Amino acid sequence: MDERLARMSLAAVVEPGHPAVAEAVAAYGAEAVWASVREQPADVPLAVRARRVVPEELVARTRAAGLRFVVPDDEEWPAALADLAGGEPVNELSGEPLGLWVGGGGHLGELCSSSVAIVGSRASTAYGDTVAADLGAELSEGGRSIVSGGAYGIDAAAHRGCLAGRTPTVAVLAGGLDQPYPAGHRPLFERIAERGAIVSELAPGEHPTRVRFLARNRLIAALAPGTVLVEAAARSGARNTVTWANALARVVMAVPGPVGSATSFTPHRLIREAEAVLVTGATDVLELLSPLGRASPRTPGEHRATDDLDGVELRVFEAVPGRGALPAGEVALRAGITLPRCLAALDRLAEEGFLAQDLHGQWHLPHRTPHRAR
Amino acid sequence: MDERLARMSLAAVVEPGHPAVAEAVAAYGAEAVWASVREQPADVPLAVRARRVVPEELVARTRAAGLRFVVPDDEEWPAALADLAGGEPVNELSGEPLGLWVGGGGHLGELCSSSVAIVGSRASTAYGDTVAADLGAELSEGGRSIVSGGAYGIDAAAHRGCLAGRTPTVAVLAGGLDQPYPAGHRPLFERIAERGAIVSELAPGEHPTRVRFLARNRLIAALAPGTVLVEAAARSGARNTVTWANALARVVMAVPGPVGSATSFTPHRLIREAEAVLVTGATDVLELLSPLGRASPRTPGEHRATDDLDGVELRVFEAVPGRGALPAGEVALRAGITLPRCLAALDRLAEEGFLAQDLHGQWHLPHRTPHRAR
Repeated sequence: MDERLARMSLAAVVEPGHPAVAEAVAAYGAEAVWASVREQPADVPLAVRARRVVPEELVARTRAAGLRFVVPDDEEWPAALADLAGGEPVNELSGEPLGLWVGGGGHLGELCSSSVAIVGSRASTAYGDTVAADLGAELSEGGRSIVSGGAYGIDAAAHRGCLAGRTPTVAVLAGGLDQPYPAGHRPLFERIAERGAIVSELAPGEHPTRVRFLARNRLIAALAPGTVLVEAAARSGARNTVTWANALARVVMAVPGPVGSATSFTPHRLIREAEAVLVTGATDVLELLSPLGRASPRTPGEHRATDDLDGVELRVFEAVPGRGALPAGEVALRAGITLPRCLAALDRLAEEGFLAQDLHGQWHLPHRTPHRAR
Repeated sequence: MDERLARMSLAAVVEPGHPAVAEAVAAYGAEAVWASVREQPADVPLAVRARRVVPEELVARTRAAGLRFVVPDDEEWPAALADLAGGEPVNELSGEPLGLWVGGGGHLGELCSSSVAIVGSRASTAYGDTVAADLGAELSEGGRSIVSGGAYGIDAAAHRGCLAGRTPTVAVLAGGLDQPYPAGHRPLFERIAERGAIVSELAPGEHPTRVRFLARNRLIAALAPGTVLVEAAARSGARNTVTWANALARVVMAVPGPVGSATSFTPHRLIREAEAVLVTGATDVLELLSPLGRASPRTPGEHRATDDLDGVELRVFEAVPGRGALPAGEVALRAGITLPRCLAALDRLAEEGFLAQDLHGQWHLPHRTPHRAR
């Protein structure tokens, strides 16, 4: 039995987001962990389930559903998911997935590396749907693919907006992809899979549960460099995605709305509490996210009077390259802090003359040495 | 000629927000400055205007319009206006007013000390008008008076909301109060004056100009401990009031709206750039503003490991009293920094264990020494 088959078998019996299993696999390899799980006493529920799995049937079922099982060593594996391996668990869930069932014609890693996640309420308003669809379409025109959860409401509007644009979209689901949930979105999932991808940590035949939705949310937050919350009431699963995105130092954004609207409660609260940056449209989002590969390393030997900077300021200052300029979102990612804190620190650093902002809002060192001719 | 009459005469010939005149009056007294202005050569425009003023006629005209002229030594003078004496000028305007023409039955100082300024666009939407009226009414029910500019749109909605509540409201105008502008609001100004106040730095007979509106904005920002921006397009005079309020370290708040709405452009931008805190209603505003007199002095002799705090953190930490708790808005006022920065610093101080937040969101020291019995 090879590593991929062992990972697939484990993924079929272990609930997603189980940090101990992910750690054991990282330490000993999936084959050893799978063997060990099968050897557990018969009264251990995991062993009971493991003994019921016939790996070859799982492979056949995956193929029959037109799916592939992607693992971390695959070229297609999104590198960003490695961020789930360390750090603090949210809701006691954590860990890089053992593997992902994927359907569709897109290259998952490439789709996600330049994506934006758009999340929000199932019970969205017409305002929220319009904003999500416009964001999806305009970000797609701007070259970003859209990652979302395939649900009714904001998710569907964002996927559809992207489908109307020029990039593929990615739906990350909380159950098996052979019978994707919600069933009413089957035509939508088929269109998504044409050029994009439908993705799940769950084996074919598995149904979504509350915990699986929460585990799925961590994947959405991890897969995209930035997450936009469009609408969410006071209690909403989308809030959980935002918590994950902040824990993973992603760029977290939220769209405001009318103050009387219950579904704008959570975006407003997150903005007010500096857990998300207010964005009003695709232009704001694109400005906050990095144009890829703009940075270059700091010129060595430079001396700066950074002794008076606090820890956050120093991290932000060090995250700005010696040459070139970066948007605030990329600076925050490099500094490993939330964007609102980064914006406040950038503001202070600019006031104190450590940094400057160009006409496009990107940050750079204030006195750049001119390039010497030849 | 007494000091009050000299101030009134000067106020009638000097444009408001003229920092040099305010400084000269503070240094030499109004009588000396008035005499000096009258003695200037005849080709000095100020002297020309000064020679046309007959102070006794000014007094008569003030009385005839049912107004009083209030000066800094008066018990009714709002103490907060002294903050205009120092600091950086905004738009080259600055300075504490020489005096204020006031009409109405309210005590200006008391009305302003527990007020909230609500400002915004003349060309407001139905959404903005509703939000401003609700805010005015609910803040009034919460014991706050409303300061605004008496203009069409947001100002009028806020004044009317307050009139429907239980506290008086204050309209600060940019022209003489004998013919208040806009003329269509004459009935509104009469209702405001019944229990509240109409206020102007301009003498009776003077008309508003662009510069006078800007100078008036600084008074609104200074008079109220907090300013809420409800709606403002990209170019709006209300933006200037917010700049003043931040320069004066007041609590600056903004109400979000639908992202497609042009009149929510400036609130969204201010929130995004941490120049204003997002508020969704009166509850948010009341939470950010101080319940009066909650603070008590720091217990002397306490030792804390504050060496690692940066300048802003230290100011914020020092602004939290040794006993009792304060809302973030009051901490920011005491620390003399903008509220968004204060919120970020409070967040860091809480993470590092220097401060804690109670169930009402107020900030206090984490390990309070219990009161000794007797």
